[in-house]
Amino acid sequence: MFKYYLFTPGPTPVPPKTSLAMAAPIIHHRSPQFATVLAEVKENLKYVFQTQNDVLILASSGTGGMEGVVTNTLSPGDKALVVRAGKFGERWAEICKAYGVEVLNIDVEWGRCVKAEQIAHGLDKNPEIKAVFVQAHETSTGVKFPLKEIAEVVKKRETTILVVDAISALGAMEIKTDEWGLDVVVGGSQKALMLPPGLAFVCLNEKAWRFVEESRLPKYYFDFSKEKKSLEKNQTAYTPAVSLIIGLRENLRQIKQIGLENIVKYHQRLSDGVKMAVKAMGLSIFTKENPSEVLTAVEAPKGIDAQMIVKKLREEYGITIAGGQSQLKGRIFRISHMGYTDEHEMVMTIAALERVLIELGYELIPGTGVKAIQQILLQK
Amino acid sequence: MFKYYLFTPGPTPVPPKTSLAMAAPIIHHRSPQFATVLAEVKENLKYVFQTQNDVLILASSGTGGMEGVVTNTLSPGDKALVVRAGKFGERWAEICKAYGVEVLNIDVEWGRCVKAEQIAHGLDKNPEIKAVFVQAHETSTGVKFPLKEIAEVVKKRETTILVVDAISALGAMEIKTDEWGLDVVVGGSQKALMLPPGLAFVCLNEKAWRFVEESRLPKYYFDFSKEKKSLEKNQTAYTPAVSLIIGLRENLRQIKQIGLENIVKYHQRLSDGVKMAVKAMGLSIFTKENPSEVLTAVEAPKGIDAQMIVKKLREEYGITIAGGQSQLKGRIFRISHMGYTDEHEMVMTIAALERVLIELGYELIPGTGVKAIQQILLQK
Repeated sequence: MFKYYLFTPGPTPVPPKTSLAMAAPIIHHRSPQFATVLAEVKENLKYVFQTQNDVLILASSGTGGMEGVVTNTLSPGDKALVVRAGKFGERWAEICKAYGVEVLNIDVEWGRCVKAEQIAHGLDKNPEIKAVFVQAHETSTGVKFPLKEIAEVVKKRETTILVVDAISALGAMEIKTDEWGLDVVVGGSQKALMLPPGLAFVCLNEKAWRFVEESRLPKYYFDFSKEKKSLEKNQTAYTPAVSLIIGLRENLRQIKQIGLENIVKYHQRLSDGVKMAVKAMGLSIFTKENPSEVLTAVEAPKGIDAQMIVKKLREEYGITIAGGQSQLKGRIFRISHMGYTDEHEMVMTIAALERVLIELGYELIPGTGVKAIQQILLQK
Repeated sequence: MFKYYLFTPGPTPVPPKTSLAMAAPIIHHRSPQFATVLAEVKENLKYVFQTQNDVLILASSGTGGMEGVVTNTLSPGDKALVVRAGKFGERWAEICKAYGVEVLNIDVEWGRCVKAEQIAHGLDKNPEIKAVFVQAHETSTGVKFPLKEIAEVVKKRETTILVVDAISALGAMEIKTDEWGLDVVVGGSQKALMLPPGLAFVCLNEKAWRFVEESRLPKYYFDFSKEKKSLEKNQTAYTPAVSLIIGLRENLRQIKQIGLENIVKYHQRLSDGVKMAVKAMGLSIFTKENPSEVLTAVEAPKGIDAQMIVKKLREEYGITIAGGQSQLKGRIFRISHMGYTDEHEMVMTIAALERVLIELGYELIPGTGVKAIQQILLQK
């Protein structure tokens, strides 16, 4: 008996009911039936994004949504401020460069967090900056950005927008798009929205739409104005990923029924448990500042390759977690507690991790980690 | 009892076995299990494309693949020759323009076909043309392009590539990528490959890859060089649409087992039957030259709005076919016989069409169309 478990920060497990909904016969994307689906999805996405603005739905992975933001809001030669605090901050910079946008980087040590003052300082020095690109949660390091404070800084400026990659945050962490004044927020399907990969979401407020009007970078497939017009008629500009959107309807209903606040609390609970457990096992959390409730990034113990831990868990225990990316490869492993994941699975993962570490020669009394997570889970 | 049937030129019905495969628990896209899937899919896509070259797999609709070809093979100010014989020819021109490529159009009356000599003439007049953009099959009109003859013209030139949108042709019509010398071929998931929308495919030969090396148009999400490198390791550059690729594996196995030649013959058989039936009913085929075996485009009888026929079939009979696009809206309707569609369904569709037309006041003896398709289907 060998079962497979998936606790990576994307893709995440899909609820079986949703998988079955997606297995229903395909319907045509210009039919009234599909328009009904899109109308519902559109409303419920607003709830998840905590916004009154429409959320565009793109047939692409999250990176496509990120590229779309750059090409739809900026023009050649524009200046952008990018916070590079991990792999996905680097991606913002790479996309901007690919399109001839001048990038000013704020480089933050991986595992640490940017401060709103650094962004204020960057904008003061270069007031012509058109857009500030950040993450809500840097998936590669497990750091949560102080979005509310950053938005306070950016919203004082008429000529600068704040763009947030919330791909691994939406539906897991608190993201108050309208209340905080986030101008652009990007999401993806395969994280806390509990779907297979293949959908990106982008929400723009009025200020951001004004940037779209003035943007002169080339675009075609990711053309937000065209998508906006189509969405008003409950359509998409090009053929949408029909089955994924059918699945999205199921998951959004579920999220709305449970309530975002409760979902965030549940993520926090799993996160507290896992973090407490790994610490009790004598391991260090890699994330030095603002660790998120989305995943736990852990430093491999001295002398043990993190990739070995990931490999053993996957091949011998059937549990897939994530290793480190880029410079963190071999140094850390990441356990996701995102989306359709429950407390029993986290207990089980800690137990398996204990055995793997002991097998790799790490000194540990079995049950140490499990005891710690149990103590957290006993708190109601 | 009200069942839904889908006979549109995309999306097309998905085989139930494939839907169930896609409903299996999601796996991680960087796992050895998924690499095994990609390795198999990669080989079998070569079979469908009839090529020895790798076929890139993109998480987007077909239009994303089309855009990728433009941005990966051309540079600002390059000249392109575009055959505009329908809506999708127009799309090639629009994409080129969006990226600052100078477009020379060969405009062909909708429903008619371009001749290879017109392309030869265009290239003679403007030898600096870098790329010729055509359709294998223009979905909006049902016209099949003489690809082999066009390729003969273009392959004489070292500095021009032939780019083929085969989105609605692959797996239904004969497309001999390598033998004919098609430099770039674009495919999509939701046509004869019998999957939900959300995947685009692009195959480039050596000549086209040399264009990629020199291309200076901006790109990031659709970066073919990055995808090529990733595919060599059985990965994709960005998170792929995992569930759709799992489904693709099933369908490609099925296609390979049946054999492309047999599949093309089957499409031809259904097409002959449907075309014979509508003609027997006194209707005219809209497609004046090279009608494809992928779909049948029919002119609505005088005084009857084609959209009314489509609407009645959908709402009262549960059968979804397609209307006309752009200037053909209201004038034609299109019945797809593409992908996972069988002869019984075509008989049934003709029967329903008879009833709808009679209800709309068209004079017809019931059974006229059915008799004609039956006669074709009696030929083994």
